Amino acid sequence: MTLRDDAINLHRMLKGKIEIRSRVSLDNAAEERGILGLIYTPGVAYVALEISSNKKLAYDYTSKWNNVAIICDGTRVLGLGNIGPEGALPIMEGKSVLFKALGDINAIPLCIDTQDKEEIIRFVKLIQPNFGAINIEDIESPKVLEIVERLTKEVSIPVFHDDQHGTAIITLAALINALRLANKELGKVRVVISGSGSAGYGIFKILQTAGCKDIVVTDTRGAIFDGRVDIDNQNPYKKDISINTNFRKLNGTLMEVIRKSDVFIGVSGKADILNKQMIESMNKDAIVFALSNPDPEIIPNRALEYGARIVATGRSDFPNQINNAVVFPSVFRALLDLRANNLSEDMLVSVAQAIASIVEDVHLRNDYIIPKVDDPRILPIVTKTIKKVLGRHIKNNVRSKTDTRK
Amino acid sequence: MTLRDDAINLHRMLKGKIEIRSRVSLDNAAEERGILGLIYTPGVAYVALEISSNKKLAYDYTSKWNNVAIICDGTRVLGLGNIGPEGALPIMEGKSVLFKALGDINAIPLCIDTQDKEEIIRFVKLIQPNFGAINIEDIESPKVLEIVERLTKEVSIPVFHDDQHGTAIITLAALINALRLANKELGKVRVVISGSGSAGYGIFKILQTAGCKDIVVTDTRGAIFDGRVDIDNQNPYKKDISINTNFRKLNGTLMEVIRKSDVFIGVSGKADILNKQMIESMNKDAIVFALSNPDPEIIPNRALEYGARIVATGRSDFPNQINNAVVFPSVFRALLDLRANNLSEDMLVSVAQAIASIVEDVHLRNDYIIPKVDDPRILPIVTKTIKKVLGRHIKNNVRSKTDTRK
Repeated sequence: MTLRDDAINLHRMLKGKIEIRSRVSLDNAAEERGILGLIYTPGVAYVALEISSNKKLAYDYTSKWNNVAIICDGTRVLGLGNIGPEGALPIMEGKSVLFKALGDINAIPLCIDTQDKEEIIRFVKLIQPNFGAINIEDIESPKVLEIVERLTKEVSIPVFHDDQHGTAIITLAALINALRLANKELGKVRVVISGSGSAGYGIFKILQTAGCKDIVVTDTRGAIFDGRVDIDNQNPYKKDISINTNFRKLNGTLMEVIRKSDVFIGVSGKADILNKQMIESMNKDAIVFALSNPDPEIIPNRALEYGARIVATGRSDFPNQINNAVVFPSVFRALLDLRANNLSEDMLVSVAQAIASIVEDVHLRNDYIIPKVDDPRILPIVTKTIKKVLGRHIKNNVRSKTDTRK
Repeated sequence: MTLRDDAINLHRMLKGKIEIRSRVSLDNAAEERGILGLIYTPGVAYVALEISSNKKLAYDYTSKWNNVAIICDGTRVLGLGNIGPEGALPIMEGKSVLFKALGDINAIPLCIDTQDKEEIIRFVKLIQPNFGAINIEDIESPKVLEIVERLTKEVSIPVFHDDQHGTAIITLAALINALRLANKELGKVRVVISGSGSAGYGIFKILQTAGCKDIVVTDTRGAIFDGRVDIDNQNPYKKDISINTNFRKLNGTLMEVIRKSDVFIGVSGKADILNKQMIESMNKDAIVFALSNPDPEIIPNRALEYGARIVATGRSDFPNQINNAVVFPSVFRALLDLRANNLSEDMLVSVAQAIASIVEDVHLRNDYIIPKVDDPRILPIVTKTIKKVLGRHIKNNVRSKTDTRK
């Protein structure tokens, strides 16, 4: 049996990886106590009226407090490209299983039959009453970056984009600890990011916010810099990168710009783009995060052999897996429990620092730089961190946040 | 403790009546067998690609086959009126509990933050990939009638409107059996329907399709008839009623038109609108369905006292409860199991006849005209009936049905 056969057979057998479960029994005993008349008519009418007069009570009387919508338009599913909303369904059901297992969250896949930016934004606004938070997943970039930016301003529940925010948090957490080992400072290292999609943009943004000053991002045309002829206002996110990175205006291929860098972060979607010469051209104690899945930018053993000190990938079969699943369940759990209404770059940085801090000096090693998915210390520290950030935000920003709903 | 207190306390304790459950365990044993790599990356990619190349496989490899969306805009919730989408949430969660308990169906409440007809129609089209059928619930009439009519033509999964179709089916089933007792024929009786909203229109339509020839529908202005000055094309459903009922063009109040009728069906939303004189003015062996909830058009004991032979209400604390819950779980179960892509008036009539037939002659009594909610014979006979109707439709109509999705 191949992996393909195993996966297809398991899905055919399961006929769906998630289902609805009632939290209330309607057995004979419940019937005798008149439960049906409380959860449905006539009793539920009183609950409906209460909520109607104070919408926030939906968090207390319904499952809204624990509901997350997984929104996908099928345009950039895993490494498969634009396979449509039906194709995305089994992946989003799998993600829902992870939400439940790791965060005890009700995550409802909504793979939608439009690829239009404005329709996707409007769709999320329409479903807002039912959910405590939104997870945006596997939508093509740069469209998705604008969707997330708009929604963050225009809805009153948190909008988390795992490909962007989740990847950024776990990458920064891993980098903080790799730099501890290499005895280098984030404000002084030179970082090269290969890839300028959701993950590349998210990592650029979190590194910038965290104080990293020397970043070069490359795309298929090589290093991005301010003034590169193809960079215009059509893609404000690439424009943002061009203005806020590569201040020496390096022009050239990845091979050229990786020279004398301290950190390589690959989110290019391309396998085997790093070779011996490139790794050898990096500074001493080089850090190589080859995060593309399933095939990384370089196989870890080779990177180590060519002189890298710390290597991480997105894969579970190598050490140092940079795994979003360390982040998104606890971040959502905390956002829901704290009834946060927003995300901020500051919050992402603080969460990354908190997750990094879980790995104590005595355990920190070249092949152990981030906590495992099931580390019980993650949720408490993430919750504490977000609570602290929200406290600061309540003082400064919340009053300026407008509820745009009718 | 009042009913209100009991209902609020139960909801506060439950914090949501439904939740997501995984159909796959991620425990250590599952981990050892590599289940995570099958339900998520990398294995799930093969499943996604299969579905992408043949969308119908979503029915086999995901929960689509058993998913129903409950769509509500909060405009006509129970008898509470326009209380908004948040207010509607606890009711739709209660409905989801009923879907699960009675039909083993995953019904997902989507209470949406728009009251615009076109947006609601578009919304349903956008979510189509995730669901095997749609349930429209508690949206104001006549807007909802147009939404349902449009969706029935424009989407390729069944769209069931419980307030309209469910009420119509169970009312016709009860009427068929009441007429058996009264020894009258549907094609010969005179029926008065009070109320021209979703339920009134649905009942008019099913009675017309079933062969009832003498129907008078009343609204707040009295009997509807062709040529009544306020009836124009603004509301095509009232226009439909005006053209296809009341051929003698009776003009007058309910009190006037109920005279010499055989059947009264009240879906007016108004309590106590029938009095002694009105019941006494009906024909011998009068049938009175006073279906408004929570307070019927007349209290059953009074109707019987004034001479009605068979009385039914929407309430569980009186005999002959005309209860949609007898219908919608089995109809949805059958539509999903048969992968129907449509509903038709013929199908509604056939299902009503089938449900009526469950009550055998030996059991049929003035106070037992419809089967109870938990009668195990309902699902098999409904499935058999819909299968038969679909078979006929496959021959006649299906080829003209267009999949309008992009």
